Amino acid sequence: MRKSGRQNDEIREVKITRNYLKHPQGSVLIEMGETKVICTATLEEKVPPFLRNSGKGWLTAEYAMLPMATQERNKRESAQGRIGGRTHEIQRLIGRSLRAVTDLESFGEKTVYIDCDVIQADGGTRTASITGSFVALVDLFRKMMEEGKCATMPVQDYVSAVSVGILEDQLLLDLEYAEDSQAEVDMNVVMTGMGKFIEVQGTAEKVPFSQERLLAMIELAGQGIRKLTEIQKQTLGGNL
Amino acid sequence: MRKSGRQNDEIREVKITRNYLKHPQGSVLIEMGETKVICTATLEEKVPPFLRNSGKGWLTAEYAMLPMATQERNKRESAQGRIGGRTHEIQRLIGRSLRAVTDLESFGEKTVYIDCDVIQADGGTRTASITGSFVALVDLFRKMMEEGKCATMPVQDYVSAVSVGILEDQLLLDLEYAEDSQAEVDMNVVMTGMGKFIEVQGTAEKVPFSQERLLAMIELAGQGIRKLTEIQKQTLGGNL
Amino acid sequence: MRKSGRQNDEIREVKITRNYLKHPQGSVLIEMGETKVICTATLEEKVPPFLRNSGKGWLTAEYAMLPMATQERNKRESAQGRIGGRTHEIQRLIGRSLRAVTDLESFGEKTVYIDCDVIQADGGTRTASITGSFVALVDLFRKMMEEGKCATMPVQDYVSAVSVGILEDQLLLDLEYAEDSQAEVDMNVVMTGMGKFIEVQGTAEKVPFSQERLLAMIELAGQGIRKLTEIQKQTLGGNL
Amino acid sequence: MRKSGRQNDEIREVKITRNYLKHPQGSVLIEMGETKVICTATLEEKVPPFLRNSGKGWLTAEYAMLPMATQERNKRESAQGRIGGRTHEIQRLIGRSLRAVTDLESFGEKTVYIDCDVIQADGGTRTASITGSFVALVDLFRKMMEEGKCATMPVQDYVSAVSVGILEDQLLLDLEYAEDSQAEVDMNVVMTGMGKFIEVQGTAEKVPFSQERLLAMIELAGQGIRKLTEIQKQTLGGNL
Amino acid sequence: MRKSGRQNDEIREVKITRNYLKHPQGSVLIEMGETKVICTATLEEKVPPFLRNSGKGWLTAEYAMLPMATQERNKRESAQGRIGGRTHEIQRLIGRSLRAVTDLESFGEKTVYIDCDVIQADGGTRTASITGSFVALVDLFRKMMEEGKCATMPVQDYVSAVSVGILEDQLLLDLEYAEDSQAEVDMNVVMTGMGKFIEVQGTAEKVPFSQERLLAMIELAGQGIRKLTEIQKQTLGGNL
Amino acid sequence: MRKSGRQNDEIREVKITRNYLKHPQGSVLIEMGETKVICTATLEEKVPPFLRNSGKGWLTAEYAMLPMATQERNKRESAQGRIGGRTHEIQRLIGRSLRAVTDLESFGEKTVYIDCDVIQADGGTRTASITGSFVALVDLFRKMMEEGKCATMPVQDYVSAVSVGILEDQLLLDLEYAEDSQAEVDMNVVMTGMGKFIEVQGTAEKVPFSQERLLAMIELAGQGIRKLTEIQKQTLGGNL
Repeated sequence: MRKSGRQNDEIREVKITRNYLKHPQGSVLIEMGETKVICTATLEEKVPPFLRNSGKGWLTAEYAMLPMATQERNKRESAQGRIGGRTHEIQRLIGRSLRAVTDLESFGEKTVYIDCDVIQADGGTRTASITGSFVALVDLFRKMMEEGKCATMPVQDYVSAVSVGILEDQLLLDLEYAEDSQAEVDMNVVMTGMGKFIEVQGTAEKVPFSQERLLAMIELAGQGIRKLTEIQKQTLGGNL
Repeated sequence: MRKSGRQNDEIREVKITRNYLKHPQGSVLIEMGETKVICTATLEEKVPPFLRNSGKGWLTAEYAMLPMATQERNKRESAQGRIGGRTHEIQRLIGRSLRAVTDLESFGEKTVYIDCDVIQADGGTRTASITGSFVALVDLFRKMMEEGKCATMPVQDYVSAVSVGILEDQLLLDLEYAEDSQAEVDMNVVMTGMGKFIEVQGTAEKVPFSQERLLAMIELAGQGIRKLTEIQKQTLGGNL
Repeated sequence: MRKSGRQNDEIREVKITRNYLKHPQGSVLIEMGETKVICTATLEEKVPPFLRNSGKGWLTAEYAMLPMATQERNKRESAQGRIGGRTHEIQRLIGRSLRAVTDLESFGEKTVYIDCDVIQADGGTRTASITGSFVALVDLFRKMMEEGKCATMPVQDYVSAVSVGILEDQLLLDLEYAEDSQAEVDMNVVMTGMGKFIEVQGTAEKVPFSQERLLAMIELAGQGIRKLTEIQKQTLGGNL
Repeated sequence: MRKSGRQNDEIREVKITRNYLKHPQGSVLIEMGETKVICTATLEEKVPPFLRNSGKGWLTAEYAMLPMATQERNKRESAQGRIGGRTHEIQRLIGRSLRAVTDLESFGEKTVYIDCDVIQADGGTRTASITGSFVALVDLFRKMMEEGKCATMPVQDYVSAVSVGILEDQLLLDLEYAEDSQAEVDMNVVMTGMGKFIEVQGTAEKVPFSQERLLAMIELAGQGIRKLTEIQKQTLGGNL
Repeated sequence: MRKSGRQNDEIREVKITRNYLKHPQGSVLIEMGETKVICTATLEEKVPPFLRNSGKGWLTAEYAMLPMATQERNKRESAQGRIGGRTHEIQRLIGRSLRAVTDLESFGEKTVYIDCDVIQADGGTRTASITGSFVALVDLFRKMMEEGKCATMPVQDYVSAVSVGILEDQLLLDLEYAEDSQAEVDMNVVMTGMGKFIEVQGTAEKVPFSQERLLAMIELAGQGIRKLTEIQKQTLGGNL
Repeated sequence: MRKSGRQNDEIREVKITRNYLKHPQGSVLIEMGETKVICTATLEEKVPPFLRNSGKGWLTAEYAMLPMATQERNKRESAQGRIGGRTHEIQRLIGRSLRAVTDLESFGEKTVYIDCDVIQADGGTRTASITGSFVALVDLFRKMMEEGKCATMPVQDYVSAVSVGILEDQLLLDLEYAEDSQAEVDMNVVMTGMGKFIEVQGTAEKVPFSQERLLAMIELAGQGIRKLTEIQKQTLGGNL
């Protein structure tokens, strides 16, 4: 059994608080165990240059951590004058994942901003960001539908994400930091509610892994995704 | 009476939650009405170059806002590659205010980092940051004393801050955003629990003001400070 | 008596040279004792984005120091790739102070640039910058009126600034560097010729100060302002 | 059949020129069809701060494109003053992939720099970079062994990378730009010569994909990797 | 005789490969001994702001080195976040040199981008960049004439560049790195095919030089330029 | 005759004010006609990394313009976050020119900072900077000798600089802005008091120039240098 008392195939306790902030149209606090991320979705009435006069909209994501979200204080990227590689990688992943299920032609030349700010980090901040942002995004789209800004719901399927890994030769679902930092293999999987894959990113942190292990990790991730989809459905009160 | 139902000389409801985050030694969520700021205090075992081999410690502060803390999304300073003037001004103010009551020689060559991250903004974020950070700072110092890292409590007096302003010729205490953005005069006052001044910053936003008005604003600020000191005392369980 | 031979309530010798540079419409060299600042005012025929199509003009200020203005060479901010917090703070103060007396609607969608470049620093560079810039600004506006670019003089009152402080328990007016760097309390006051306040910024550098002291400093600043207004009037040859 | 005349499961013609440059210890020009990348490996006699006094070495990678490597001129990142997200992502991937097979403890506190500069881009620049860099890395390590800088060869297995994708419902191996830019799913796979996985990154560019498709892509990638390993072996003249 | 076996007044072997890259309209690999530079010329359908609505075109140049072009790895300017002084100086020189013979009014409001990327450096990279870029530029203009984008050839004379220097009191033509780094005087000369000067930049690296020496260097440079012009003519197949 | 009333071979009136600033060891205001530059020389007790433990000193220069030194306001490079190519070019030229006559081994591991700040620009700011900085540098070295920081005067010859150019087919010495901006050819020459060349930079701004013209310009520059050396000698009171 894991240090946290969880089974190897058990995700952490998930709590999603909707309408967490006053200003954004969609805002969520997602807690996966000790990992806490504020995810917001807001609309801007213009698109990036490459989409001007295309009739299409866009969705983009930004991700950051509070300096004290981590055990050791991490330096503020604003103070350093540039965004690091890890941040770039994560915010690109969040954006791609949500765009993959969003009909960007359904709401005109507008941009959806997804902001994920990690308040407290204990592993799995990128996957929690995706799972939480999806809920904020649906809340935004619901408001847009109410206001007549889009005729149909631009997302047709759920999206959530979870990590799996191999630690001391054991397959683990939803790694917390103490596990993640020791894992031999680390994989993040983004899937839809229908069980389709949006993104699979597996990395041998120390030892290359076999195809058999790869398949087992994918299976295990699928279990986590089904659980997360269930929680998203309950949070959102049923249908999209 | 004000739109919020408050009297002109009444501060907003204040709520300070200690130990808000898992990792930092001192961490607080301060809510002043709809304004919400996470304030943390942490220790780093080194000092900036100008203090090396001085035997003295240092205290510095950083301040930021979530992009969706405000009504209109404000751009992330990390994405812009630089910190704006307003941020610089605020974090320098927070640092100065707390250094003014801290005995920097009492804990050796170490640096205290104060991080203030505004989760939601409704006016008065800089003053709430100071009031909240003070509590986080005391929590840090208490832990340092427990761990034998300092022999005596490095702060000897409380510090809190409040805004006052003139709006439609009325003196108002603790302005929320709707008031602040319309005010003719805006003043931020940082004071100790003993009623001494640390910082007074008054600005005529539209119309220069008379000395009589200046004195009246200072008086009114003092009222707010006394209330805030009381709340800090209760939160911290009595003596420093 | 002070090291410089001045009385505690005596400002340094002030010299304002108008039309100091060839190119800008308004340009001044202000000398307050050993502190020397070149202040210029120029017009640009456009406004920042937030004012486009508003019919209103804008005024903004920039401040810098020569590397060798100070005793120790200060690094050029251009070489460091960013403007420091102190510079931001000062140039925002200069801009706010002059905007407070300028009718921004009287000259259309144009921007006034105030540039303050410190040639030599001996304390009080920000206050000298304000006092000198006001004169350069009036010269610019006079030219604009001559050229028919504005129908009325956009400023209706004088603006000047002075520092006061407490050093070894003595109240001092217009601190030079040797005093400023040792002062327990440092206050900058910006006032109009009519004796109204535009900005009051008082900071306890070492020890919090009492209300009585605050009031005494404000009084003393007023004396300095009256003297400075007088000098501005003479320099400008009477009426605005 | 594909536009290029290739079968769906056929990689492009690969040409690896060793000792391409005069100065670096290892340097390779890899050509995969029209994609051309210069990969170099060099040694620096120090490590990043986090490894000082650890006795361990490090390996890091940088990646860039010539402005005219692509059809439309891409702006130089040096002129823009920052590295974009895509570049960050790729250079992190290259570094991780090579570290996964390198014994960082075998050559002391030194850093291996891998530089990948794309001279001409026609899809698959990141995978070509990995495949080519591995050869340059072996050349560097061979020189280090000759010079007595390491006792044993620090890599024990080959590393290469290839892309697979789904385009018009067809599985394709080693996509060129015209295919890649239209693909529904895009996957990059990094594997060892022994057939183990180092990195799997699959992305639904337009439509989420099924597990069956995922497995088929992984199989197809494996075919490409076997071919690339064979070419690396021939290029390197047999054993590692 | 020089270490390389060359006579003092002998340039290195020059090889210019046209159409070196697939995408740009003009692209050349120029090799002068061990120095190798990729030079490209491409057209962008807009001009910088200062030329909008002028009817005139522009030509600008950028220059960079691969990190491993030099003996010691030089840091990537993109990673450092800014372009160094040497790079600025060189790319300005390349742009000026080519603009001096280009009729910018002959092809409308378009910008020619010259990109010079040094693959391998052994002295004389800036002069090789100019000599090679000229060939790429002619290739671009020929394509533009074929496509009817300009009625006449915008360049009317050849441009090439060469270095001369004084080393151990000897005049040397076309210095390689080992000579250049030891030279007492270093001069770069840009000339037209007709023998006119575009740019002369001579620098006393260690000892100021006499007018007699200056004239001798200018003469020697002229010899090199005549040889380079000859090679350009052959490469371009005769007339411009 | 020129618009200014000068002969073609006549330099502008030169005025060099020594000890212009209070803090730096050497400081000069140089005025060449309407061009005014503050030049300072100061000593820092350390050297850049590449000279540590070499026993040698260094000399480096920085150059900047006040925003309103020019007719059109030029943007502050600190506000833009980077130094432009022109600034880089000029400050490298100033540094090289002064290093060429300075014995860097005569004053130990120290760095001389030359700062040139253009107060008012009317052409020839880089040449005025060199001529003025030389005087400031001698003043610094004289103080160092008095303080025993160097045993002998580290400069053994004078250095000054002047521009020449061709305008409407006329050779002109020491161009002012109205001439410079129209010139067909522009040349800057840096020479020693003994008539040796340190730097020659000639540029065809519009039309390539003949060797005959080149020689005539060099002759004319020499005349200007002789005059400037004379002025430096008088200013410095005779011998070095």
